[in-house]
Amino acid sequence: MPETPGPLLIIGGHEDKEQDREILGKLAGMVQGGRLVIATIASHKPEGYFDSYREAFGALGLSDLVELYVHERSDSSTSEALALLDGVAGVFFTGGDQLRISSQIGDTPVEKRIQEIHAAGGVIAGTSAGASVMSETMLVKGASSETYRIGELHMAPGLGLIRDVIIDQHFAERGRYGRLVGAVAHNPRLLGIGIDEDTALLVQGGVGEVLGSGAVYVVDGEEASYSNVAEARAECALSIHDVRMHVLSGGNRFDFAARRPHSAARPNG
Amino acid sequence: MPETPGPLLIIGGHEDKEQDREILGKLAGMVQGGRLVIATIASHKPEGYFDSYREAFGALGLSDLVELYVHERSDSSTSEALALLDGVAGVFFTGGDQLRISSQIGDTPVEKRIQEIHAAGGVIAGTSAGASVMSETMLVKGASSETYRIGELHMAPGLGLIRDVIIDQHFAERGRYGRLVGAVAHNPRLLGIGIDEDTALLVQGGVGEVLGSGAVYVVDGEEASYSNVAEARAECALSIHDVRMHVLSGGNRFDFAARRPHSAARPNG
Repeated sequence: MPETPGPLLIIGGHEDKEQDREILGKLAGMVQGGRLVIATIASHKPEGYFDSYREAFGALGLSDLVELYVHERSDSSTSEALALLDGVAGVFFTGGDQLRISSQIGDTPVEKRIQEIHAAGGVIAGTSAGASVMSETMLVKGASSETYRIGELHMAPGLGLIRDVIIDQHFAERGRYGRLVGAVAHNPRLLGIGIDEDTALLVQGGVGEVLGSGAVYVVDGEEASYSNVAEARAECALSIHDVRMHVLSGGNRFDFAARRPHSAARPNG
Repeated sequence: MPETPGPLLIIGGHEDKEQDREILGKLAGMVQGGRLVIATIASHKPEGYFDSYREAFGALGLSDLVELYVHERSDSSTSEALALLDGVAGVFFTGGDQLRISSQIGDTPVEKRIQEIHAAGGVIAGTSAGASVMSETMLVKGASSETYRIGELHMAPGLGLIRDVIIDQHFAERGRYGRLVGAVAHNPRLLGIGIDEDTALLVQGGVGEVLGSGAVYVVDGEEASYSNVAEARAECALSIHDVRMHVLSGGNRFDFAARRPHSAARPNG
Protein backbone atom coordinates (compact mmCIF):
# COMPACT_ATOMS: atom_id res chain seq x y z
CA MET A 1 0.00 0.00 0.00
CA PRO A 2 1.55 3.35 -0.98
CA GLU A 3 2.04 5.74 1.90
CA THR A 4 0.18 9.03 2.07
CA PRO A 5 2.04 12.02 3.51
CA GLY A 6 0.79 13.14 6.89
CA PRO A 7 -0.88 16.44 7.71
CA LEU A 8 0.95 19.73 8.13
CA LEU A 9 -0.30 22.02 10.89
CA ILE A 10 1.03 25.49 10.12
CA ILE A 11 0.48 27.89 13.03
CA GLY A 12 0.89 31.68 12.95
CA GLY A 13 2.43 31.96 16.42
CA HIS A 14 1.01 32.72 19.89
CA GLU A 15 -1.45 29.83 19.75
CA ASP A 16 -3.68 29.65 22.82
CA LYS A 17 -1.99 27.45 25.42
CA GLU A 18 -4.24 28.12 28.41
CA GLN A 19 -7.91 28.53 27.42
CA ASP A 20 -9.62 26.65 24.59
CA ARG A 21 -6.35 25.35 23.15
CA GLU A 22 -8.18 24.72 19.86
CA ILE A 23 -5.05 24.39 17.74
CA LEU A 24 -2.92 22.41 20.21
CA GLY A 25 -5.98 20.22 20.88
CA LYS A 26 -6.22 19.46 17.17
CA LEU A 27 -2.55 18.48 17.16
CA ALA A 28 -2.98 16.29 20.25
CA GLY A 29 -5.93 14.58 18.53
CA MET A 30 -3.89 13.86 15.42
CA VAL A 31 -1.09 12.32 17.45
CA GLN A 32 -3.68 9.92 18.92
CA GLY A 33 -1.78 8.92 22.04
CA GLY A 34 1.52 8.48 20.20
CA ARG A 35 4.75 10.30 20.91
CA LEU A 36 5.19 13.93 19.86
CA VAL A 37 8.66 15.41 19.40
CA ILE A 38 8.90 19.05 20.49
CA ALA A 39 11.67 20.45 18.27
CA THR A 40 12.94 23.63 19.93
CA ILE A 41 15.70 24.06 17.36
CA ALA A 42 14.57 27.53 16.24
CA SER A 43 15.56 28.98 19.57
CA HIS A 44 19.10 30.09 20.37
CA LYS A 45 18.32 29.25 23.99
CA PRO A 46 15.73 26.49 24.18
CA GLU A 47 15.06 26.76 27.93
CA GLY A 48 11.38 27.13 28.78
CA TYR A 49 9.80 26.16 25.46
CA PHE A 50 9.54 22.47 26.21
CA ASP A 51 8.14 23.05 29.70
CA SER A 52 5.40 25.38 28.53
CA TYR A 53 4.28 22.92 25.84
CA ARG A 54 4.50 19.99 28.27
CA GLU A 55 2.05 21.85 30.48
CA ALA A 56 -0.32 22.73 27.64
CA PHE A 57 -0.32 19.27 26.06
CA GLY A 58 -0.55 17.62 29.49
CA ALA A 59 -3.83 19.46 30.07
CA LEU A 60 -4.98 17.98 26.75
CA GLY A 61 -4.10 14.43 27.80
CA LEU A 62 -0.95 14.16 25.70
CA SER A 63 2.00 13.28 27.88
CA ASP A 64 4.38 11.28 25.66
CA LEU A 65 6.60 14.19 24.65
CA VAL A 66 10.32 14.37 23.98
CA GLU A 67 12.45 17.43 23.24
CA LEU A 68 14.73 17.62 20.21
CA TYR A 69 17.37 20.35 20.32
CA VAL A 70 20.63 20.71 18.45
CA HIS A 71 23.35 22.90 19.90
CA GLU A 72 25.33 22.79 16.70
CA ARG A 73 24.90 21.35 13.25
CA SER A 74 26.96 18.24 13.97
CA ASP A 75 24.36 17.23 16.58
CA SER A 76 21.95 16.62 13.68
CA SER A 77 23.88 13.55 12.59
CA THR A 78 24.17 11.82 15.97
CA SER A 79 22.51 8.54 16.84
CA GLU A 80 21.14 10.19 19.99
CA ALA A 81 19.22 12.75 17.94
CA LEU A 82 17.96 10.11 15.51
CA ALA A 83 16.87 7.85 18.36
CA LEU A 84 14.58 10.62 19.62
CA LEU A 85 12.73 10.41 16.30
CA ASP A 86 12.21 6.64 16.34
CA GLY A 87 8.61 5.55 16.09
CA VAL A 88 7.14 8.98 16.80
CA ALA A 89 3.68 10.10 15.70
CA GLY A 90 4.67 13.66 14.93
CA VAL A 91 7.10 16.56 15.22
CA PHE A 92 6.27 20.07 16.42
CA PHE A 93 8.67 22.91 15.57
CA THR A 94 8.41 25.73 18.11
CA GLY A 95 9.21 29.41 17.50
CA GLY A 96 12.41 31.42 17.28
CA ASP A 97 14.51 31.93 14.17
CA GLN A 98 13.60 29.90 11.07
CA LEU A 99 17.16 30.27 9.80
CA ARG A 100 18.39 28.37 12.82
CA ILE A 101 16.22 25.37 11.87
CA SER A 102 17.22 25.37 8.20
CA SER A 103 20.94 25.94 8.87
CA GLN A 104 21.27 23.45 11.72
CA ILE A 105 19.25 20.51 10.34
CA GLY A 106 19.00 21.18 6.57
CA ASP A 107 20.38 18.24 4.58
CA THR A 108 21.29 16.22 7.71
CA PRO A 109 20.11 12.78 8.86
CA VAL A 110 17.72 14.45 11.35
CA GLU A 111 16.02 16.36 8.56
CA LYS A 112 15.85 13.24 6.41
CA ARG A 113 14.21 11.34 9.26
CA ILE A 114 11.65 14.12 9.75
CA GLN A 115 10.84 14.04 6.02
CA GLU A 116 10.40 10.26 6.30
CA ILE A 117 8.06 10.65 9.28
CA HIS A 118 5.95 13.05 7.23
CA ALA A 119 6.01 10.86 4.12
CA ALA A 120 4.86 7.89 6.18
CA GLY A 121 1.80 9.73 7.48
CA GLY A 122 3.16 11.47 10.58
CA VAL A 123 1.99 14.97 11.45
CA ILE A 124 4.45 17.85 11.20
CA ALA A 125 3.41 20.99 13.04
CA GLY A 126 5.17 24.30 13.41
CA THR A 127 4.42 27.66 14.98
CA SER A 128 5.93 31.04 14.09
CA ALA A 129 9.48 30.25 12.86
CA GLY A 130 8.38 26.62 12.79
CA ALA A 131 5.63 27.60 10.35
CA SER A 132 7.87 29.66 8.05
CA VAL A 133 10.45 26.91 7.73
CA MET A 134 7.94 24.48 6.21
CA SER A 135 7.81 26.23 2.88
CA GLU A 136 10.08 25.70 -0.09
CA THR A 137 11.36 29.28 0.03
CA MET A 138 10.96 30.97 3.38
CA LEU A 139 10.85 34.57 4.55
CA VAL A 140 13.67 35.64 6.87
CA LYS A 141 13.85 38.90 8.80
CA GLY A 142 11.94 41.11 6.36
CA ALA A 143 10.71 44.39 7.80
CA SER A 144 7.27 44.43 9.36
CA SER A 145 4.83 47.35 9.29
CA GLU A 146 6.04 48.86 6.07
CA THR A 147 5.55 48.63 2.35
CA TYR A 148 8.02 46.33 0.65
CA ARG A 149 11.07 48.08 -0.83
CA ILE A 150 12.50 46.77 -4.07
CA GLY A 151 15.83 45.09 -3.48
CA GLU A 152 14.98 43.90 0.00
CA LEU A 153 15.60 40.21 -0.46
CA HIS A 154 14.84 38.35 2.73
CA MET A 155 14.34 34.82 1.51
CA ALA A 156 16.17 31.55 2.02
CA PRO A 157 15.45 27.90 1.27
CA GLY A 158 13.17 26.22 3.81
CA LEU A 159 12.48 22.54 4.48
CA GLY A 160 10.13 22.23 1.50
CA LEU A 161 7.48 20.21 3.32
CA ILE A 162 4.96 22.21 1.31
CA ARG A 163 5.79 23.26 -2.25
CA ASP A 164 4.84 26.34 -4.26
CA VAL A 165 3.97 28.48 -1.25
CA ILE A 166 5.73 30.99 0.96
CA ILE A 167 4.48 31.30 4.52
CA ASP A 168 4.44 34.30 6.85
CA GLN A 169 3.24 34.36 10.47
CA HIS A 170 2.15 36.84 13.18
CA PHE A 171 0.55 38.24 10.07
CA ALA A 172 -2.03 40.93 10.86
CA GLU A 173 -0.50 41.53 14.29
CA ARG A 174 2.87 42.58 12.87
CA GLY A 175 1.60 44.26 9.71
CA ARG A 176 3.32 41.85 7.34
CA TYR A 177 1.12 42.30 4.31
CA GLY A 178 3.72 44.40 2.53
CA ARG A 179 6.52 41.89 2.84
CA LEU A 180 4.40 38.90 1.79
CA VAL A 181 3.18 40.69 -1.34
CA GLY A 182 6.81 41.64 -2.01
CA ALA A 183 7.88 38.00 -1.75
CA VAL A 184 5.10 36.88 -4.11
CA ALA A 185 6.07 39.57 -6.63
CA HIS A 186 9.47 37.91 -7.12
CA ASN A 187 7.81 34.82 -8.57
CA PRO A 188 4.04 34.44 -8.50
CA ARG A 189 4.47 30.68 -8.81
CA LEU A 190 4.65 30.89 -5.03
CA LEU A 191 1.34 31.48 -3.35
CA GLY A 192 1.69 33.77 -0.32
CA ILE A 193 0.15 32.43 2.89
CA GLY A 194 -0.05 34.85 5.84
CA ILE A 195 -1.23 33.33 9.11
CA ASP A 196 -2.46 35.38 12.08
CA GLU A 197 -1.56 34.56 15.67
CA ASP A 198 -3.64 31.82 17.34
CA THR A 199 -4.60 30.66 13.85
CA ALA A 200 -3.49 27.67 11.82
CA LEU A 201 -3.80 26.12 8.41
CA LEU A 202 -4.15 22.35 8.52
CA VAL A 203 -2.96 21.03 5.17
CA GLN A 204 -3.76 17.49 4.10
CA GLY A 205 -4.40 15.97 0.69
CA GLY A 206 -3.77 19.29 -1.06
CA VAL A 207 -6.45 21.12 0.94
CA GLY A 208 -5.90 23.57 3.79
CA GLU A 209 -8.47 24.19 6.52
CA VAL A 210 -8.37 27.23 8.79
CA LEU A 211 -8.45 26.73 12.58
CA GLY A 212 -8.29 29.23 15.42
CA SER A 213 -9.38 32.76 16.20
CA GLY A 214 -7.79 34.82 13.41
CA ALA A 215 -7.51 34.66 9.65
CA VAL A 216 -5.29 33.19 6.97
CA TYR A 217 -4.52 35.54 4.06
CA VAL A 218 -3.81 34.04 0.66
CA VAL A 219 -1.97 36.30 -1.80
CA ASP A 220 -2.16 35.02 -5.39
CA GLY A 221 -0.06 36.92 -7.92
CA GLU A 222 -0.79 34.61 -10.86
CA GLU A 223 -2.92 37.20 -12.68
CA ALA A 224 -0.76 40.19 -11.75
CA SER A 225 -0.60 42.54 -14.73
CA TYR A 226 2.40 44.62 -13.69
CA SER A 227 5.18 44.64 -11.13
CA ASN A 228 8.26 46.85 -10.73
CA VAL A 229 10.21 44.36 -8.62
CA ALA A 230 12.90 43.77 -11.24
CA GLU A 231 13.02 47.27 -12.65
CA ALA A 232 13.08 49.91 -10.03
CA ARG A 233 15.78 51.43 -7.88
CA ALA A 234 16.47 49.51 -4.68
CA GLU A 235 14.91 52.04 -2.33
CA CYS A 236 11.67 52.24 -4.34
CA ALA A 237 8.41 51.06 -2.91
CA LEU A 238 6.93 47.95 -4.51
CA SER A 239 4.30 48.30 -7.18
CA ILE A 240 2.19 45.33 -8.27
CA HIS A 241 -1.21 45.38 -9.95
CA ASP A 242 -4.05 42.84 -9.97
CA VAL A 243 -3.16 40.63 -7.06
CA ARG A 244 -5.95 38.30 -5.94
CA MET A 245 -6.40 38.05 -2.22
CA HIS A 246 -8.51 35.84 0.04
CA VAL A 247 -9.13 36.32 3.75
CA LEU A 248 -10.03 32.95 5.24
CA SER A 249 -11.38 32.50 8.75
CA GLY A 250 -12.17 29.42 10.85
CA GLY A 251 -13.71 26.59 8.83
CA ASN A 252 -12.79 28.02 5.44
CA ARG A 253 -10.82 25.70 3.16
CA PHE A 254 -8.34 26.32 0.39
CA ASP A 255 -7.63 23.97 -2.51
CA PHE A 256 -3.96 24.43 -3.40
CA ALA A 257 -4.04 22.78 -6.83
CA ALA A 258 -7.03 24.84 -7.96
CA ARG A 259 -5.83 27.93 -5.99
CA ARG A 260 -9.44 28.36 -4.86
CA PRO A 261 -11.01 29.04 -1.44
CA HIS A 262 -14.22 27.49 -0.15
CA SER A 263 -16.34 28.79 2.66
CA ALA A 264 -17.54 26.40 5.33
CA ALA A 265 -21.10 27.23 4.31
CA ARG A 266 -20.54 26.15 0.73
CA PRO A 267 -17.93 23.39 0.75
CA ASN A 268 -18.05 23.14 -3.03
CA GLY A 269 -18.75 26.83 -3.58
CA MET B 1 -17.53 78.48 -18.63
CA PRO B 2 -18.42 75.55 -16.32
CA GLU B 3 -16.12 75.19 -13.34
CA THR B 4 -13.97 72.09 -12.88
CA PRO B 5 -13.46 70.84 -9.32
CA GLY B 6 -9.95 71.33 -8.01
CA PRO B 7 -7.47 68.61 -7.10
CA LEU B 8 -7.58 66.58 -3.91
CA LEU B 9 -4.23 65.80 -2.30
CA ILE B 10 -4.82 62.87 0.06
CA ILE B 11 -1.79 62.24 2.29
CA GLY B 12 -1.19 59.17 4.48
CA GLY B 13 0.31 61.10 7.40
CA HIS B 14 3.90 61.91 8.46
CA GLU B 15 4.73 63.58 5.16
CA ASP B 16 8.32 64.76 4.99
CA LYS B 17 8.51 68.35 6.30
CA GLU B 18 12.29 68.75 6.49
CA GLN B 19 14.09 67.00 3.65
CA ASP B 20 12.76 66.67 0.10
CA ARG B 21 9.27 67.82 1.05
CA GLU B 22 7.98 66.22 -2.19
CA ILE B 23 4.34 66.18 -1.15
CA LEU B 24 4.20 69.59 0.52
CA GLY B 25 6.16 70.98 -2.44
CA LYS B 26 3.49 69.64 -4.78
CA LEU B 27 0.83 71.37 -2.68
CA ALA B 28 2.79 74.64 -2.62
CA GLY B 29 3.10 74.43 -6.41
CA MET B 30 -0.64 73.94 -6.84
CA VAL B 31 -1.42 76.96 -4.68
CA GLN B 32 0.75 79.03 -7.04
CA GLY B 33 1.45 81.91 -4.70
CA GLY B 34 -2.15 82.16 -3.47
CA ARG B 35 -3.31 81.81 0.12
CA LEU B 36 -3.47 78.41 1.79
CA VAL B 37 -5.72 77.80 4.80
CA ILE B 38 -4.21 75.42 7.36
CA ALA B 39 -7.29 73.82 8.96
CA THR B 40 -6.15 72.36 12.30
CA ILE B 41 -9.69 71.37 13.23
CA ALA B 42 -8.92 67.65 13.67
CA SER B 43 -6.86 68.41 16.73
CA HIS B 44 -8.34 68.78 20.19
CA LYS B 45 -5.47 71.14 20.96
CA PRO B 46 -4.28 72.87 17.79
CA GLU B 47 -1.10 74.38 19.27
CA GLY B 48 2.01 73.61 17.28
CA TYR B 49 0.46 72.32 14.04
CA PHE B 50 0.27 75.69 12.31
CA ASP B 51 3.81 76.65 13.31
CA SER B 52 5.36 73.44 11.99
CA TYR B 53 3.58 73.81 8.64
CA ARG B 54 4.45 77.53 8.46
CA GLU B 55 8.09 76.54 8.74
CA ALA B 56 7.84 73.76 6.14
CA PHE B 57 5.88 75.81 3.61
CA GLY B 58 8.07 78.86 4.27
CA ALA B 59 11.09 76.85 3.13
CA LEU B 60 9.14 76.08 -0.03
CA GLY B 61 8.44 79.77 -0.69
CA LEU B 62 4.79 79.68 0.37
CA SER B 63 4.19 82.25 3.06
CA ASP B 64 0.56 83.36 2.66
CA LEU B 65 -0.93 80.98 5.24
CA VAL B 66 -3.82 81.41 7.65
CA GLU B 67 -4.99 79.04 10.37
CA LEU B 68 -8.60 77.90 10.63
CA TYR B 69 -9.60 76.35 13.95
CA VAL B 70 -13.00 75.91 15.55
CA HIS B 71 -13.21 75.51 19.30
CA GLU B 72 -16.83 74.44 19.08
CA ARG B 73 -19.35 73.76 16.37
CA SER B 74 -20.95 77.20 16.61
CA ASP B 75 -17.64 78.74 15.49
CA SER B 76 -18.25 77.16 12.08
CA SER B 77 -21.07 79.59 11.36
CA THR B 78 -19.28 82.80 12.30
CA SER B 79 -18.37 85.55 9.87
CA GLU B 80 -14.81 85.47 11.27
CA ALA B 81 -14.36 81.85 10.21
CA LEU B 82 -15.92 82.48 6.80
CA ALA B 83 -13.72 85.53 6.26
CA LEU B 84 -10.64 83.31 6.64
CA LEU B 85 -11.82 81.33 3.62
CA ASP B 86 -12.37 84.35 1.34
CA GLY B 87 -10.43 84.19 -1.90
CA VAL B 88 -8.13 81.39 -0.84
CA ALA B 89 -6.37 79.05 -3.26
CA GLY B 90 -6.69 75.97 -1.09
CA VAL B 91 -7.38 74.33 2.26
CA PHE B 92 -5.13 71.83 4.04
CA PHE B 93 -6.62 69.67 6.80
CA THR B 94 -3.94 68.58 9.28
CA GLY B 95 -4.03 65.43 11.44
CA GLY B 96 -5.78 64.45 14.65
CA ASP B 97 -9.27 62.97 14.89
CA GLN B 98 -11.36 62.82 11.70
CA LEU B 99 -14.53 62.75 13.80
CA ARG B 100 -13.65 66.17 15.16
CA ILE B 101 -13.62 67.59 11.62
CA SER B 102 -16.89 65.98 10.55
CA SER B 103 -18.72 66.76 13.80
CA GLN B 104 -17.53 70.36 14.13
CA ILE B 105 -17.90 71.57 10.54
CA GLY B 106 -20.25 69.03 8.89
CA ASP B 107 -23.30 70.78 7.40
CA THR B 108 -22.16 74.25 8.52
CA PRO B 109 -21.41 77.40 6.49
CA VAL B 110 -17.66 76.70 6.85
CA GLU B 111 -18.04 73.28 5.26
CA LYS B 112 -20.24 74.71 2.51
CA ARG B 113 -17.59 77.32 1.73
CA ILE B 114 -14.86 74.67 1.58
CA GLN B 115 -16.98 72.61 -0.83
CA GLU B 116 -17.43 75.76 -2.94
CA ILE B 117 -13.68 76.40 -2.97
CA HIS B 118 -13.16 72.85 -4.23
CA ALA B 119 -15.94 73.08 -6.80
CA ALA B 120 -14.45 76.30 -8.13
CA GLY B 121 -11.06 74.68 -8.73
CA GLY B 122 -9.31 75.18 -5.38
CA VAL B 123 -7.07 72.46 -4.02
CA ILE B 124 -8.16 70.57 -0.91
CA ALA B 125 -5.40 68.65 0.86
CA GLY B 126 -5.50 66.55 3.98
CA THR B 127 -3.07 64.41 5.93
CA SER B 128 -3.87 61.52 8.28
CA ALA B 129 -7.28 62.42 9.82
CA GLY B 130 -7.50 65.11 7.14
CA ALA B 131 -7.18 62.36 4.51
CA SER B 132 -9.78 60.04 6.03
CA VAL B 133 -12.38 62.80 6.32
CA MET B 134 -12.40 63.42 2.55
CA SER B 135 -14.27 60.23 1.74
CA GLU B 136 -18.00 59.71 1.66
CA THR B 137 -17.88 57.14 4.46
CA MET B 138 -14.83 57.35 6.67
CA LEU B 139 -13.06 54.95 9.00
CA VAL B 140 -13.01 55.97 12.67
CA LYS B 141 -10.98 54.30 15.42
CA GLY B 142 -10.91 50.75 13.99
CA ALA B 143 -8.28 48.47 15.49
CA SER B 144 -4.87 48.39 13.80
CA SER B 145 -2.59 45.34 13.52
CA GLU B 146 -5.32 42.74 13.62
CA THR B 147 -7.69 40.93 11.34
CA TYR B 148 -11.09 42.56 11.10
CA ARG B 149 -13.73 41.11 13.43
CA ILE B 150 -17.29 40.87 12.21
CA GLY B 151 -19.48 43.37 14.01
CA GLU B 152 -16.72 45.93 14.48
CA LEU B 153 -18.36 48.90 12.83
CA HIS B 154 -16.06 51.88 12.90
CA MET B 155 -17.44 54.05 10.13
CA ALA B 156 -19.08 57.46 10.01
CA PRO B 157 -20.04 59.90 7.26
CA GLY B 158 -17.13 62.02 6.02
CA LEU B 159 -17.11 65.22 3.97
CA GLY B 160 -17.73 63.39 0.70
CA LEU B 161 -15.19 65.34 -1.35
CA ILE B 162 -14.49 62.05 -3.10
CA ARG B 163 -17.31 59.55 -3.69
CA ASP B 164 -17.36 55.74 -3.74
CA VAL B 165 -14.11 55.32 -1.83
CA ILE B 166 -13.09 54.82 1.79
CA ILE B 167 -9.65 56.08 2.77
CA ASP B 168 -7.25 54.78 5.41
CA GLN B 169 -3.87 56.27 6.32
CA HIS B 170 -0.60 55.35 8.14
CA PHE B 171 -1.43 52.21 6.21
CA ALA B 172 1.49 49.76 6.14
CA GLU B 173 3.08 51.40 9.18
CA ARG B 174 0.09 50.63 11.43
CA GLY B 175 -0.92 47.32 9.87
CA ARG B 176 -4.33 48.52 8.70
CA TYR B 177 -4.90 46.06 5.89
CA GLY B 178 -7.38 44.06 7.95
CA ARG B 179 -9.61 46.98 8.81
CA LEU B 180 -9.70 48.38 5.28
CA VAL B 181 -10.68 45.00 3.81
CA GLY B 182 -13.31 44.77 6.55
CA ALA B 183 -14.73 48.16 5.58
CA VAL B 184 -14.85 47.21 1.90
CA ALA B 185 -16.61 43.93 2.74
CA HIS B 186 -19.62 45.89 4.05
CA ASN B 187 -20.31 47.28 0.61
CA PRO B 188 -17.85 46.71 -2.23
CA ARG B 189 -19.29 49.76 -3.99
CA LEU B 190 -16.66 51.58 -1.94
CA LEU B 191 -13.14 51.14 -3.16
CA GLY B 192 -10.67 50.89 -0.28
CA ILE B 193 -7.69 53.25 -0.51
CA GLY B 194 -4.88 52.70 2.01
CA ILE B 195 -2.13 55.33 1.98
CA ASP B 196 1.29 54.86 3.59
CA GLU B 197 3.06 57.58 5.54
CA ASP B 198 4.94 60.19 3.47
CA THR B 199 2.81 59.12 0.51
CA ALA B 200 -0.09 60.82 -1.22
CA LEU B 201 -2.70 60.28 -3.86
CA LEU B 202 -3.30 63.37 -6.00
CA VAL B 203 -6.79 63.05 -7.45
CA GLN B 204 -7.89 65.20 -10.36
CA GLY B 205 -10.27 64.55 -13.23
CA GLY B 206 -11.11 61.08 -11.92
CA VAL B 207 -7.49 59.94 -11.93
CA GLY B 208 -5.22 59.52 -8.90
CA GLU B 209 -1.43 59.76 -9.10
CA VAL B 210 0.86 58.45 -6.37
CA LEU B 211 3.49 60.77 -4.86
CA GLY B 212 6.01 60.19 -2.09
CA SER B 213 8.16 57.42 -0.68
CA GLY B 214 5.62 54.68 0.16
CA ALA B 215 2.72 52.97 -1.55
CA VAL B 216 -1.02 53.36 -2.02
CA TYR B 217 -3.01 50.12 -1.67
CA VAL B 218 -6.27 49.80 -3.59
CA VAL B 219 -8.68 47.14 -2.31
CA ASP B 220 -11.41 46.31 -4.83
CA GLY B 221 -14.15 43.98 -3.60
CA GLU B 222 -16.32 44.18 -6.72
CA GLU B 223 -15.58 40.59 -7.79
CA ALA B 224 -15.62 39.13 -4.29
CA SER B 225 -17.27 35.71 -4.42
CA TYR B 226 -17.99 35.26 -0.70
CA SER B 227 -17.99 37.24 2.51
CA ASN B 228 -19.20 36.39 6.02
CA VAL B 229 -19.59 39.99 7.15
CA ALA B 230 -23.37 39.80 7.51
CA GLU B 231 -23.61 36.24 8.70
CA ALA B 232 -21.13 35.40 11.36
CA ARG B 233 -21.01 35.93 15.10
CA ALA B 234 -19.65 39.31 16.16
CA GLU B 235 -16.32 38.03 17.46
CA CYS B 236 -15.60 36.03 14.30
CA ALA B 237 -12.71 36.93 12.06
CA LEU B 238 -13.63 38.31 8.66
CA SER B 239 -13.71 36.03 5.67
CA ILE B 240 -13.81 37.40 2.13
CA HIS B 241 -12.73 35.66 -1.07
CA ASP B 242 -11.51 37.05 -4.39
CA VAL B 243 -10.56 40.58 -3.48
CA ARG B 244 -8.52 42.38 -6.11
CA MET B 245 -5.63 44.40 -4.77
CA HIS B 246 -3.18 46.84 -6.30
CA VAL B 247 -0.01 48.19 -4.69
CA LEU B 248 0.83 51.52 -6.34
CA SER B 249 4.10 53.35 -5.83
CA GLY B 250 5.37 56.75 -6.94
CA GLY B 251 4.27 57.69 -10.46
CA ASN B 252 1.60 54.99 -10.74
CA ARG B 253 -1.88 56.22 -11.61
CA PHE B 254 -5.36 54.92 -10.87
CA ASP B 255 -8.46 55.54 -12.97
CA PHE B 256 -11.39 55.62 -10.57
CA ALA B 257 -14.20 55.19 -13.11
CA ALA B 258 -12.51 52.18 -14.72
CA ARG B 259 -11.16 50.96 -11.37
CA ARG B 260 -7.86 50.29 -13.15
CA PRO B 261 -4.23 51.08 -12.26
CA HIS B 262 -1.58 52.24 -14.72
CA SER B 263 2.13 52.09 -14.19
CA ALA B 264 4.22 55.15 -14.97
CA ALA B 265 6.05 53.09 -17.58
CA ARG B 266 2.88 52.33 -19.49
CA PRO B 267 0.54 55.31 -19.03
CA ASN B 268 -2.17 53.61 -21.08
CA GLY B 269 -1.23 50.07 -20.01
